Amino acid sequence: MSLQRPNILKMQGYNFGEQPISDAVIKLNTNENPYPPSPQVAEALANIQTSVLNRYPSPMATKFRETAARLHNIHIDNIIPTNGGDELLRLIITTYVDPAETVATTAPSYSLYPVLAATQNCNFVEIALSKSWNLPEDLGTLLNEKKVKAFFLINPHAPTGHLFSSEQIEKIASKFQGLLVIDEAYVDFVDPNRQHNCVPLIHRHDNLIILRTLSKGYSLAGLRFGYGLACKDLIGPLATKTRDSYNTDSIAQVLATAALQSKAYSEETWRKIRQSREVLTLALQKIGISCSPSETNFLLCTIDHPIQINAKTIYEKLRKENVYVRYFDEPLLQDKIRVTVGSDHENKRLLSLLRATIKF
Amino acid sequence: MSLQRPNILKMQGYNFGEQPISDAVIKLNTNENPYPPSPQVAEALANIQTSVLNRYPSPMATKFRETAARLHNIHIDNIIPTNGGDELLRLIITTYVDPAETVATTAPSYSLYPVLAATQNCNFVEIALSKSWNLPEDLGTLLNEKKVKAFFLINPHAPTGHLFSSEQIEKIASKFQGLLVIDEAYVDFVDPNRQHNCVPLIHRHDNLIILRTLSKGYSLAGLRFGYGLACKDLIGPLATKTRDSYNTDSIAQVLATAALQSKAYSEETWRKIRQSREVLTLALQKIGISCSPSETNFLLCTIDHPIQINAKTIYEKLRKENVYVRYFDEPLLQDKIRVTVGSDHENKRLLSLLRATIKF
Repeated sequence: MSLQRPNILKMQGYNFGEQPISDAVIKLNTNENPYPPSPQVAEALANIQTSVLNRYPSPMATKFRETAARLHNIHIDNIIPTNGGDELLRLIITTYVDPAETVATTAPSYSLYPVLAATQNCNFVEIALSKSWNLPEDLGTLLNEKKVKAFFLINPHAPTGHLFSSEQIEKIASKFQGLLVIDEAYVDFVDPNRQHNCVPLIHRHDNLIILRTLSKGYSLAGLRFGYGLACKDLIGPLATKTRDSYNTDSIAQVLATAALQSKAYSEETWRKIRQSREVLTLALQKIGISCSPSETNFLLCTIDHPIQINAKTIYEKLRKENVYVRYFDEPLLQDKIRVTVGSDHENKRLLSLLRATIKF
Repeated sequence: MSLQRPNILKMQGYNFGEQPISDAVIKLNTNENPYPPSPQVAEALANIQTSVLNRYPSPMATKFRETAARLHNIHIDNIIPTNGGDELLRLIITTYVDPAETVATTAPSYSLYPVLAATQNCNFVEIALSKSWNLPEDLGTLLNEKKVKAFFLINPHAPTGHLFSSEQIEKIASKFQGLLVIDEAYVDFVDPNRQHNCVPLIHRHDNLIILRTLSKGYSLAGLRFGYGLACKDLIGPLATKTRDSYNTDSIAQVLATAALQSKAYSEETWRKIRQSREVLTLALQKIGISCSPSETNFLLCTIDHPIQINAKTIYEKLRKENVYVRYFDEPLLQDKIRVTVGSDHENKRLLSLLRATIKF
């Protein structure tokens, strides 16, 4: 007889994108930033003495929080550092959602949310997006009717790339009686001309938590560093009760701090990625692949001629040629592939393979 | 109204030892190894290129597991890497103990266990140790009678330093129908002449998980790296369902691997600490402080003349002089302080302050 809890026994784990070891692979499947982290991160690493590692790290990554607080113009008590953004998502559920309660997200969405809900043995509800990837009118009321305790909205949205405005977010926060989690994993790639900024909302809404990560924007997926932004009353229990006491390590704290301090370097990578995103979108269009407008570092691509060749076949053909993209075998996504915007060289290779594959 | 779950609202978080920032403090309060990690760890750090950090880490720290598997002469599927040992403890509860079920440990014990049980909204039972810190006879049957789902035994024991033999452990594992978690955070400091080794038990008992950490023995508390050892059926759900997909970072994986590869260096620190433990025990005895026999890197010290000066006062007086030790205001421990075995210099300072404080 298995000792597993019944809900764990029947659940499936998170199906993360492949992480091939070979350098020959062009990885456009897990939305990593193709550029290295800032030189200041390398400098910070070079200055670390391993002789300090015998001591526990700063439990709450104080220097990192001070830097992040300055960056966002908030108080350090509005910030919780986490071992990647995923840890924050888990902490939110274990702190705020009882097993009998309901977690919700959009359909489609980041597929980790239902896994975390299943682990906590929660109910799980999906709110379908419209064909143009919009949210239902008066979502706050709808969530209340469905007795949702926590709603996870990834914004800009994955896997569509769609950006919901801060006005939309605020409207939901005002009506919704549960916890609104805005997962801003990709927010760094939003066009600055849109002047999108949800951070000030944490001062007006005591049911709003914003997730940030250094994995994408700051080219530090390998470091595992994320953080949450919210009013003190929401941060408190996460920080003092449910978080592992030393959840981020000494080296990661120093490197993450250096990354935020040299944000200008990363901003330049964001600019390059936005530019490549535009170039790639147009080039794909020319070969019969249309992309949803994206404010992220990836493109959700629809194969316009599915009769000749479908999305899954394209995914497999690219994979054979060592170009990894993501295919989701689920409703609304079966005719699509999700492609990370890579370096110029990577994007060119992708395009050349697609041109050879798609005859139209 | 708070959005917290009722059990989270009423629980207290883990009360970890103080982590002062000042270099002036002699830290003998959180059982860190006073020596730096091995030179091979420093070399590994110097060879890390930050340019690889834009990619996600190896999800299951494959190279680390290969190294640990060789070290323990087991299969890599018997190993789960975790972000410090604390993560493993949490994963065990969220995977194997339902909110309605019971977690148990000894009294006294590591005070994180009840916090993790409260977070999962489990029942919590304490099994009192005898005055010589021994376990009850036929503990396995007792745990079954109390319907315990998971029993956490820290061995060598904290805060007493007592070592339970592998025969005792095996006897519990044989009788107990729940999950037996042996937290070996301090096992590296056991006298090698005792030939203590519980790892082979994982092949004979499918209800046994062993925790290891690099925080103490390998001088890497700042790195957050631990691992679990168990049969494949117990490791599987932890690894594929409840663990955050990328729970250990790229740098930590490389450094942890280097630490295990240069185990001989750390063994030398263990030898020095065992030697200091003996010297310190005798010196304390001379000033009226008796220590429980310890197979760890700390000593549980009883103040033999509590009328003149009690343990809490000593703790406070030492603290004023920038020497931090640990005082636990709980049954069986109120007349004691727990002191980490430090470097020669640190131990001397401790002794000189104690001599000045205790007049007998």
